Amino acid sequence: MIKKVLLGIFCGCAILTAGILIGHYGIIQSSSSAPAWVRDVAKDVDESLIEKFLSEVDNIQIQENLRQLTKVPHMATTAGDEQTVQLMLKRWQDPESGLDEAWREEYMVYLSFPDPKNPNKVTVVNPSDTVLYTAREKEKAYTSDQENPEVVQPYAAYSPAGHPKGKLVYANQGKPSDYHLLNQTTNLTGTIAITRYGGAGRAAKAINAAPYGVIGVLVYTDPLDINDGLMSDINETYPHSWYMPPSGVERGSFNTHYGDMLTPYLAAKEETYRIPVGDITGIPPIPIQPIGFEDAYKLICELGGGAAPSEWQGAFNCTYNFGGPGFKHSSSFSNSDVKLDIFNHGEVKNSSNVMGIIRGSVEPDRYVIYGNHRDSWVHGAIDPSSGTSVMLELTRVLGMMVKQGKWRPRRSIIFGSWGAEEFGLIGSAEYTEQYFTKLSERTVAYINVDIAVFANATLRASGMPSVQNVIFTAAKQVNAPGLDSTSVYNNWIRYSNRTSPAHGTIPRVGYLSGAGSDYAAFVHYLGITSMDISYTYDRSKTNARIYPAYHTAYDTFDYSSKFIDPGFVSHQAIARTAGNVLIRLADSLVLPLNCSDYAESLEDYLNTAVTLYQHQLKDRNISMEPLKRAVASFRSAAAHLDQVIHTSDLANETPLKVRRINDQLMLLDRAFLNPLAFPDKYAYRHVIWASSSAGKSTFPGLADAYAKAESSGQSSDWDKVHYHLSVLSQAIEGAAHTLVDVI
Amino acid sequence: MIKKVLLGIFCGCAILTAGILIGHYGIIQSSSSAPAWVRDVAKDVDESLIEKFLSEVDNIQIQENLRQLTKVPHMATTAGDEQTVQLMLKRWQDPESGLDEAWREEYMVYLSFPDPKNPNKVTVVNPSDTVLYTAREKEKAYTSDQENPEVVQPYAAYSPAGHPKGKLVYANQGKPSDYHLLNQTTNLTGTIAITRYGGAGRAAKAINAAPYGVIGVLVYTDPLDINDGLMSDINETYPHSWYMPPSGVERGSFNTHYGDMLTPYLAAKEETYRIPVGDITGIPPIPIQPIGFEDAYKLICELGGGAAPSEWQGAFNCTYNFGGPGFKHSSSFSNSDVKLDIFNHGEVKNSSNVMGIIRGSVEPDRYVIYGNHRDSWVHGAIDPSSGTSVMLELTRVLGMMVKQGKWRPRRSIIFGSWGAEEFGLIGSAEYTEQYFTKLSERTVAYINVDIAVFANATLRASGMPSVQNVIFTAAKQVNAPGLDSTSVYNNWIRYSNRTSPAHGTIPRVGYLSGAGSDYAAFVHYLGITSMDISYTYDRSKTNARIYPAYHTAYDTFDYSSKFIDPGFVSHQAIARTAGNVLIRLADSLVLPLNCSDYAESLEDYLNTAVTLYQHQLKDRNISMEPLKRAVASFRSAAAHLDQVIHTSDLANETPLKVRRINDQLMLLDRAFLNPLAFPDKYAYRHVIWASSSAGKSTFPGLADAYAKAESSGQSSDWDKVHYHLSVLSQAIEGAAHTLVDVI
Repeated sequence: MIKKVLLGIFCGCAILTAGILIGHYGIIQSSSSAPAWVRDVAKDVDESLIEKFLSEVDNIQIQENLRQLTKVPHMATTAGDEQTVQLMLKRWQDPESGLDEAWREEYMVYLSFPDPKNPNKVTVVNPSDTVLYTAREKEKAYTSDQENPEVVQPYAAYSPAGHPKGKLVYANQGKPSDYHLLNQTTNLTGTIAITRYGGAGRAAKAINAAPYGVIGVLVYTDPLDINDGLMSDINETYPHSWYMPPSGVERGSFNTHYGDMLTPYLAAKEETYRIPVGDITGIPPIPIQPIGFEDAYKLICELGGGAAPSEWQGAFNCTYNFGGPGFKHSSSFSNSDVKLDIFNHGEVKNSSNVMGIIRGSVEPDRYVIYGNHRDSWVHGAIDPSSGTSVMLELTRVLGMMVKQGKWRPRRSIIFGSWGAEEFGLIGSAEYTEQYFTKLSERTVAYINVDIAVFANATLRASGMPSVQNVIFTAAKQVNAPGLDSTSVYNNWIRYSNRTSPAHGTIPRVGYLSGAGSDYAAFVHYLGITSMDISYTYDRSKTNARIYPAYHTAYDTFDYSSKFIDPGFVSHQAIARTAGNVLIRLADSLVLPLNCSDYAESLEDYLNTAVTLYQHQLKDRNISMEPLKRAVASFRSAAAHLDQVIHTSDLANETPLKVRRINDQLMLLDRAFLNPLAFPDKYAYRHVIWASSSAGKSTFPGLADAYAKAESSGQSSDWDKVHYHLSVLSQAIEGAAHTLVDVI
Repeated sequence: MIKKVLLGIFCGCAILTAGILIGHYGIIQSSSSAPAWVRDVAKDVDESLIEKFLSEVDNIQIQENLRQLTKVPHMATTAGDEQTVQLMLKRWQDPESGLDEAWREEYMVYLSFPDPKNPNKVTVVNPSDTVLYTAREKEKAYTSDQENPEVVQPYAAYSPAGHPKGKLVYANQGKPSDYHLLNQTTNLTGTIAITRYGGAGRAAKAINAAPYGVIGVLVYTDPLDINDGLMSDINETYPHSWYMPPSGVERGSFNTHYGDMLTPYLAAKEETYRIPVGDITGIPPIPIQPIGFEDAYKLICELGGGAAPSEWQGAFNCTYNFGGPGFKHSSSFSNSDVKLDIFNHGEVKNSSNVMGIIRGSVEPDRYVIYGNHRDSWVHGAIDPSSGTSVMLELTRVLGMMVKQGKWRPRRSIIFGSWGAEEFGLIGSAEYTEQYFTKLSERTVAYINVDIAVFANATLRASGMPSVQNVIFTAAKQVNAPGLDSTSVYNNWIRYSNRTSPAHGTIPRVGYLSGAGSDYAAFVHYLGITSMDISYTYDRSKTNARIYPAYHTAYDTFDYSSKFIDPGFVSHQAIARTAGNVLIRLADSLVLPLNCSDYAESLEDYLNTAVTLYQHQLKDRNISMEPLKRAVASFRSAAAHLDQVIHTSDLANETPLKVRRINDQLMLLDRAFLNPLAFPDKYAYRHVIWASSSAGKSTFPGLADAYAKAESSGQSSDWDKVHYHLSVLSQAIEGAAHTLVDVI
């Protein structure tokens, strides 16, 4: 009986226990149990997923992407460009490795082209109009690539058409100081100036010349600046090396502002108001044409006049003279003129961006944007297709993870394949104009990978100071190409480093103060935290301004695979590094943006400004104290926010607290925007990173205003220094206000 | 046996069930149970709390607030102003009924004052410089209030000092058309123009005059415009009624732009750059002085010249003549001049905002701002102290609930008691300049209650269309003062209504297109959804431009309590209505902002624009289709968002979804900002609600550009119409982009 009772009790207990277990674990709690999203909203970046991503990025895929992208020239709005549009769409719409959605967006933009039926001509003509010399119209062919009829003649986009004829002078780099010096000994009225690339913007070489009466400009690449002095295509230049052949010509957009020139601050849609073409500013007022150094050699070495200063001398085996104006008496060109026949024309054409997205799971209304332009000047194997082939590999790997249900990012990812960058960052600029508000409100960061690989020595990165840390994290996880046990980070620090008060010796991350690629509209117009990533040179091995095939007909798959990145391992390293950064920005619970690193850069700029300006400003009763206080406020606000982040158990607090902190980090750069700070600089609104002509490593508006006041001495210009100090101080104080306790 | 087995099975089942129940309900789930914040983040507005708030708002408290606030004159930066600062701080820092925190914020702002030792004078002088008549320097005293030595002499702030003397002319309201007409028959060079208030801005009366050679301006309030024609202080005007006594003078700020004039777009801190005083624009170029109608009568009825048109005639029992120029021959003033002796001076003074906050519990980084200015011209019982006494009652009731632990809003509430509004909305404008980024990013809405009670007939509300609904909700819950069973809403709809396609007959909510009070910087500069709420007139009973004591020494507690709101029940109704709106904005799970109502207003504007402009624009090849498409996009995006809101179970979804929707609603107005759209209008950036001079009920920039082009006929002006159409269409498209699916 007892046995039975015990058995009964035992059974009862067992059944009760089973019941309790079922009740506790087996039945979903209705009211008090945690909803499913509680776990989702607290999820952080998954390191194993990053490992998986890194292992799947494939160099051969990148190589094949590049081969496809560079089959034909794909200058903006040409048939070749359309082929790349179709390729991007096909890849991004692929059911197995594509994105959630992909589409094209079109803009009607103002471009400039030469006339294939009337090629631009540069000739030497004697007084009786006999042509003594004609510069090449095309680059010499070494592979079939150069023979493609779609290779556009070298030209200066946005140069006006015209037929100037005059005596030749040599104007070095076409800087204001160059023309000023030249003008002291030479009457420039009615002359043609030959200039070399570098030192001044492309359009500036003509804009600076016109006030002196110069009527036409030539520009060429001196072998000193691009080829480490080498010149011969017998054995020195491509196809024997990466150096530019004698007939190579750098094409380019000769304009000062970015974005479509007829629709400033408006998206260039069909019915958008367009300013009259004659109202465009920042383009050459006189014809300008680029030529190869083979032709430049013929012209420069025949010039008369006095010898130019030593800094003006290039690599030619002759003395670079100013020009009489014109050629020396002993020359067969003596008394002859140089004539330009330029047939460029402007045209409004339909340019496409290709857009693709991966929807975010938890915060779809937060965007990480990754972009690169798609258009090239010719085949563009390096510029931009190295970046595009990397982007396609990145989207393939991520797309597969999404399609297989293995991953969906916390935040949304937007991929942009921009059109018409070469004509002035047009596709990306129009995109930011069209979606200004939406992007301003929601974009966490913009990653730009244009030329992914300039050379195969080391990583190069530029960006807002707040992105430094996430780039470091990523670079530490990627193997340096060709170096088995060295990370991209450890390799990088050997090539370029600095000492940070907070971090000790670290790789040097540059700033994005110019408009060199599609980050410009994101940085300067939208104030979005941005970065630009690439692999680049060993500067101990070359002084080349840029890789020598840049914007020539030699920027081909053949060139890239032989001389830039054989095996495509540097491409792979960039795909891994940039992809790693992308995933971290998209998936991290707390955004990996470091505001204290921003404070360090502001302090650095402040110190420089105080050293350079404080003494003289004090004499003029302009105090730098508000700026000092502002930077100190920013530092303490950043330290405060960092502390909140580090002392909070954010995975277990309300997701609105994480969101609040992330909003503070995301919107930090927006605080530095002032649409009225730079009335003379189109679409530059970021008071910390705007371009500057003063050449000082400090706040750009302050540096420029100071340089102007110092040079003019006018009290109204000193007022502008004071004004800009107030603009700057209040912007930094405003940014600090966004970082402290939210209320 | 079967019985036993059945019993066993039954017992087992019972025990199992008990176990399940214990397991399910009796044991707290460890890892999977919902954290405490899950309930908090889903909480919606608590209707019982609103009931409690409504019942505690007390009219007698408001009356006593007003009595204290109006003891002495409290013009900006005077000792009386400082007393009100102290009062606000004391109330808001009260341990039992104060806010979480309260403090003052100071700005160094440019103000303009008369000289107490050299009062401004207006005289009639004959050719031998004998003074024949002197206008009053002070208003007549009916109570001790007017005898207070701190009553500032009537003057025109920002009028330059000067001593113009010349023949008098009558220029009606000083509009451009008035001077144009007058000039056709009268040589205005060297004249003094007398004008009446209304029709043109204060400063405009002098700005419009100067080009005609007018050297000084007088301005007065005609009894026709303010007193329904009544003039006698024996029995008709205050203290016998609310009408302006004959010596009453409306003071005012005579400027065109808002905010501190020396620090455009910058917060006026001590070391902020200040433009030279001579560079200020939008203020009178010639002296101007306001006088009472008692004096104006003496001058106008003696004028010579032809009779002015009937629309120029006022309530005086004489014919208003143009002026010879000068007085008629039969007058004792014949041949005499009018002389102004103006001793105003500008001065940079320290003005304070008083700020107070209640921290939000769930979303502290979202702000609802409630504000009103504190400074008056004299005692300011109505302007602004009716609003301040309402604000103090509101903060008392809310503060008590917070201090007693009964309530903490979901979002943060910021109260602003602005300084120096009377001089040009200065305190609120400087605040928005200083905290531009933070406020742009986080402010849900701004509620302005300046003059809370103009009169005791009906509610008046203006704002962005999206706030209409929450004002209606609130107004339905408040009893109309003096009407037992009628709500404020039902009373309102009888006085002012319109037919809405979506809602049928509803009260008419106005738009905030001007800069009449401190909402200006929030609406036009920051693009924050705003509203302005007050109690106002029965227009069937008076045509007064505004309550007759406006800006005079009669705007006192005595006046308010006798003639504006005896018993302070309209004040109470405003406190209840505005407080109800405030609580709903602060506590609602989904923000009570209706984007479809915004669409209705845009459609309304579009229809007007199409009717007015389409035909003529088509003739000039300017298409309105992009604007039509943009408004249609907006409508469909708004409908989509509404549907998402209505079909989601937001209380049970991730709080990030609610936040996302709320961000869409909160930031909607920001999408309409374009800092370059109105280069000639200081700090007007909102392309839908900017001020307009065209007088059409449609998009302001389009209306103004069209009016200008139509009048000039120049093709460059038609280009500007096209340009503004693009600006407008793209802003509306941009807003629509923010309302559709976020990615």
